[in-house]
Amino acid sequence: MARTIADLETPCILIDLEKVEANLQRAQAHADANGYSLRPHIKTHKLPRFAKRQLELGARGITVQKLGEAEVMAAAGLDDLFLPYNILGAAKLARLKALNDKVTIAVTADSPDTVAGYAQAFSTGKPLTVLVECDTGSKRCGVQTPAQALALARQIQGSPGLRFGGLMTYPPGGKLDATESWLREAIDLFTQAGIAVPKVTSGNTPDMWRSGQSVVTERRPGTYIYYDRMQVAAGAASFDDCALTVLATVVSRPTANRIVLDSGSKTLSNDIGNLEGYGLIKGTDITLKYLNEEHGVIELATPSDTPRVGDRVQIIPNHVCVVSNLFDVVNLVTGDTVVETVPVAARGRVD
Amino acid sequence: MARTIADLETPCILIDLEKVEANLQRAQAHADANGYSLRPHIKTHKLPRFAKRQLELGARGITVQKLGEAEVMAAAGLDDLFLPYNILGAAKLARLKALNDKVTIAVTADSPDTVAGYAQAFSTGKPLTVLVECDTGSKRCGVQTPAQALALARQIQGSPGLRFGGLMTYPPGGKLDATESWLREAIDLFTQAGIAVPKVTSGNTPDMWRSGQSVVTERRPGTYIYYDRMQVAAGAASFDDCALTVLATVVSRPTANRIVLDSGSKTLSNDIGNLEGYGLIKGTDITLKYLNEEHGVIELATPSDTPRVGDRVQIIPNHVCVVSNLFDVVNLVTGDTVVETVPVAARGRVD
Repeated sequence: MARTIADLETPCILIDLEKVEANLQRAQAHADANGYSLRPHIKTHKLPRFAKRQLELGARGITVQKLGEAEVMAAAGLDDLFLPYNILGAAKLARLKALNDKVTIAVTADSPDTVAGYAQAFSTGKPLTVLVECDTGSKRCGVQTPAQALALARQIQGSPGLRFGGLMTYPPGGKLDATESWLREAIDLFTQAGIAVPKVTSGNTPDMWRSGQSVVTERRPGTYIYYDRMQVAAGAASFDDCALTVLATVVSRPTANRIVLDSGSKTLSNDIGNLEGYGLIKGTDITLKYLNEEHGVIELATPSDTPRVGDRVQIIPNHVCVVSNLFDVVNLVTGDTVVETVPVAARGRVD
Repeated sequence: MARTIADLETPCILIDLEKVEANLQRAQAHADANGYSLRPHIKTHKLPRFAKRQLELGARGITVQKLGEAEVMAAAGLDDLFLPYNILGAAKLARLKALNDKVTIAVTADSPDTVAGYAQAFSTGKPLTVLVECDTGSKRCGVQTPAQALALARQIQGSPGLRFGGLMTYPPGGKLDATESWLREAIDLFTQAGIAVPKVTSGNTPDMWRSGQSVVTERRPGTYIYYDRMQVAAGAASFDDCALTVLATVVSRPTANRIVLDSGSKTLSNDIGNLEGYGLIKGTDITLKYLNEEHGVIELATPSDTPRVGDRVQIIPNHVCVVSNLFDVVNLVTGDTVVETVPVAARGRVD
């Protein structure tokens, strides 16, 4: 007999397969209509099966954030990977070289030291493709000016085992005009220098919905497969689009206003961003007031006998990517039916 | 040849065995000198070996927070467990019954519904010990008044398969006087009713250092094995006592002020409490300004060429318990020598 959600122990993750499919299709249609390549970031789902579905729908490769994630995906048959990170040190460069021998993989650099490391590790064998990471306003990694980008591209081109793959940025949320002008200035500089820029790749989910002319040729959204409270707050989706929820049980009703759930920061994380509260009870406007590791606490504005001890609720998390990383398995559901329980293959790949 | 810290890939966890031993011994000595039992919470380390060491030093059993943690510890030979949680539902009650048949385990209840579930599941076979959880000010789980505690104890005593095990609380930080008077009032009420209270158990690390007369007979600190920034801020330890650090690599120096590490919220968590910043660079007063999942960003007050790309730092986390849960393995070190790399056996036990 088919398992239903009622058969699951809590807390656990539910992933609505119909919402996932709709979210993937809508994003791919937007990419197709607006003439950019989609290279989804798998850090959100960490599941080879969803990466493969993204490719079936038209994605051009996938994005990973750690060598460990790349290794899991490559082992599962994914063969076109982008790892937008500075890979440093002999051990990691050896792993990168093994991956590069097996699949198509590109990485980034934002410093001469990083490029020098790549150049040494790839002085023989199959060349490595390296993109230059640009800080277009996020104040994270990246070269600070188009002139620095050009200098780094020249260093890459001057290294026998390396190929310049283009420009990469993780744009500041909601400030795409600044990103666009930064990248346009860089491209002008590269053009004057006679250096082709094979690709301009930019990331994140809210910005993927931008239409119209852009120098960006590839986008790397991740969260759009599931969405979450942060994405809804950013205007990228509605709560009805949210495909991942945490199923939790009411374990205590100490007062008529207080509800304690068995999902706390160990399963929802304390990520809060600019939101109020830690997760939204699906189908309500109730949020969790605070989390301990194994307890999530709600304080109702008005007293209520319900929900009762033992009742269950679904929580839309603030930030789904980190929630995926906190569970060994996820439950794929259609309606109330549990279709399959699958391991989160790339969970916990910290290095 | 012995491995050293320099041989490890980052990010990874380092646990200083000498500091662990000193922390465990100091706490046990305090318990012995002040006449209370120590029942350490293993949620912090999640490692059977440290649980066993805690017992060797004099601890009277261990505390776990999830059935899954109890199962891991029981399988590793730990045979006296306290699970201070409302266990609900047929599946979890069956797991609890299996554990109760195998080892000594006690649980808590704070509602008639929870007790009724225990009573039904344990109507035959070995009896289950149930303590009453009391809300002495933390505003989490627990009965709200001593009278409610007495009513619940009577329900437990009236259930053939259950034994009343005493009173349990998770005290509000820094307000132990309120906890003490709440519990004293409850004990007076139980005495008047002719019901013995076999045990009064209270938790958390900062409060364990309280000396003098108390109705509390058992304490359940967890974090004292490693300590962290929150514990130092609470006055429970010094930074020199902190036994767990995250070893990280500088992956980018985009500006003379900005340092980017390869440890972000996926390895440090976004737990912040009342602190400034996300972790402290050991041996400095530098904190991380913000975290993305795979990046930790420092903004120096004054420009500096160091540290350089590729350099390594050790980070004292804000909250170590959640950090233990984010890594599959930890590295046990003495000085710079890596003694052993061991799996975090009870990591990710969410239910």
